Amino acid sequence: MSSELETISSTGNPLVKMLRSLERKKGRAETGLFLAEGARLVEQGLSAGWSLDSLIVSASSAERPFVRDLVARAAGAGARTVQVTDRLAGQIARKDNPQAVIGAFKQGAPSLDELAVPKSSLWIGLYEVRDPGNLGTILRTADCAGLAGVLLIEQCCDPYSVEAVRASMGSIFDIAFARCSFDEFQAWRTGAGLSVFAASVNGTVRHTEADMTGASVILMGNEQAGLPDPVEATCDTLCLIPMRGGADSLNLAQATAVMTYEAWRQRGFS
Amino acid sequence: MSSELETISSTGNPLVKMLRSLERKKGRAETGLFLAEGARLVEQGLSAGWSLDSLIVSASSAERPFVRDLVARAAGAGARTVQVTDRLAGQIARKDNPQAVIGAFKQGAPSLDELAVPKSSLWIGLYEVRDPGNLGTILRTADCAGLAGVLLIEQCCDPYSVEAVRASMGSIFDIAFARCSFDEFQAWRTGAGLSVFAASVNGTVRHTEADMTGASVILMGNEQAGLPDPVEATCDTLCLIPMRGGADSLNLAQATAVMTYEAWRQRGFS
Repeated sequence: MSSELETISSTGNPLVKMLRSLERKKGRAETGLFLAEGARLVEQGLSAGWSLDSLIVSASSAERPFVRDLVARAAGAGARTVQVTDRLAGQIARKDNPQAVIGAFKQGAPSLDELAVPKSSLWIGLYEVRDPGNLGTILRTADCAGLAGVLLIEQCCDPYSVEAVRASMGSIFDIAFARCSFDEFQAWRTGAGLSVFAASVNGTVRHTEADMTGASVILMGNEQAGLPDPVEATCDTLCLIPMRGGADSLNLAQATAVMTYEAWRQRGFS
Repeated sequence: MSSELETISSTGNPLVKMLRSLERKKGRAETGLFLAEGARLVEQGLSAGWSLDSLIVSASSAERPFVRDLVARAAGAGARTVQVTDRLAGQIARKDNPQAVIGAFKQGAPSLDELAVPKSSLWIGLYEVRDPGNLGTILRTADCAGLAGVLLIEQCCDPYSVEAVRASMGSIFDIAFARCSFDEFQAWRTGAGLSVFAASVNGTVRHTEADMTGASVILMGNEQAGLPDPVEATCDTLCLIPMRGGADSLNLAQATAVMTYEAWRQRGFS
């Protein structure tokens, strides 16, 4: 398989520079690409039909059978396949792992209008969520619960950041998500007949008593500020998740999991 | 209040060296102390009755009224109170925050035998959990749900690490937790009449159909390996949390939140 592999050993190589730029939002915005680390994650992306721009494998990993197969498959799918020194792979992945395999995928999130809206579908809306670990974890939970998708409303953190991709554990490739303004979200959800259930400290209905069996969006606010009042005013139901200890609030991803699994429980897990 | 404050400006000062050692497990083990960052967190620790060894405030923060009050309160409680340069505070806190306030508390977790076991109490047991962010987040969730406590079984990550304390958002001071071997856990839970409900991919009962209204422990395994077979064999019920998307499993803290809020739902949130 080595015939399919270019070899690069210089940190000054333009491809290496480009890949390293993908750690930053600016680099991702300029190229439209993002990084997926690890052979298994790259395999998931290819299997889910995402477009792989380049595949980088370290010298130490290139001869592993799984990686050899992945290189052949990536080359067959039109990706540039490159072998680099272990040291260089560590620099691109920013960690000391001689087994490094790194894929640069094209950002493929659809626009809001392209999302399929099945009957009685369940969605998560995230309003100005800032922590990429939370975002990635929520994508993974939405995927586990088989949700229709996740809406990233207004200024959310970047789902294509290395930290969000890592926390998603591959769900970035599986679960539909789209970025939108709040006005776009409102128009879309109204047109699609979706009710909005927001988790809020101002909630008046316990989350287990809100009927989320119809077509619904679970709406979650920013980690610190929650949802702005004008946004809460547009919601159909403000749900209160019970708390009673010394803690003020659940972590955002935890609260999202509690809301999501309660809604799915109400639907009989079907 | 400045009369209560020593001033230190040298990185070579023994107190500064000791505080910096608390970033590592070895330093925490040798001193029996741990770091809490931020005036609010230190205030929570004092209010919860934890013993504060030293309080460090940066020059820029020392004149804030809230910090002045905190220094007076800490000195009154017998803590050493020290003002350092902003630069030095940043080095201790490992971040660039001129408002730094850092407390070094005595590790105060009780032993298993000292834990109070109220009637029909609900607990979380964590078996060899490795990620401090998960651990801190779970302490916070256990606190929100008013659980009796959290058991850290066998080789768990350190609840006193900076990352775990930070993720707990102060719940480290509120929720009871104890470290123990699995044998100790088994003897304790049998003596206390607690049933064990483990979340497992081998689960045979949907988690919403397991009756967790009696005195119970929700048992969660390691992030990668889950629970060993011999441990699962001792559990009363292996619960299966439904999944249906492309993801293999929920993040550990997410799964713990789902189990915890389901158990609390079954108890009518009382």
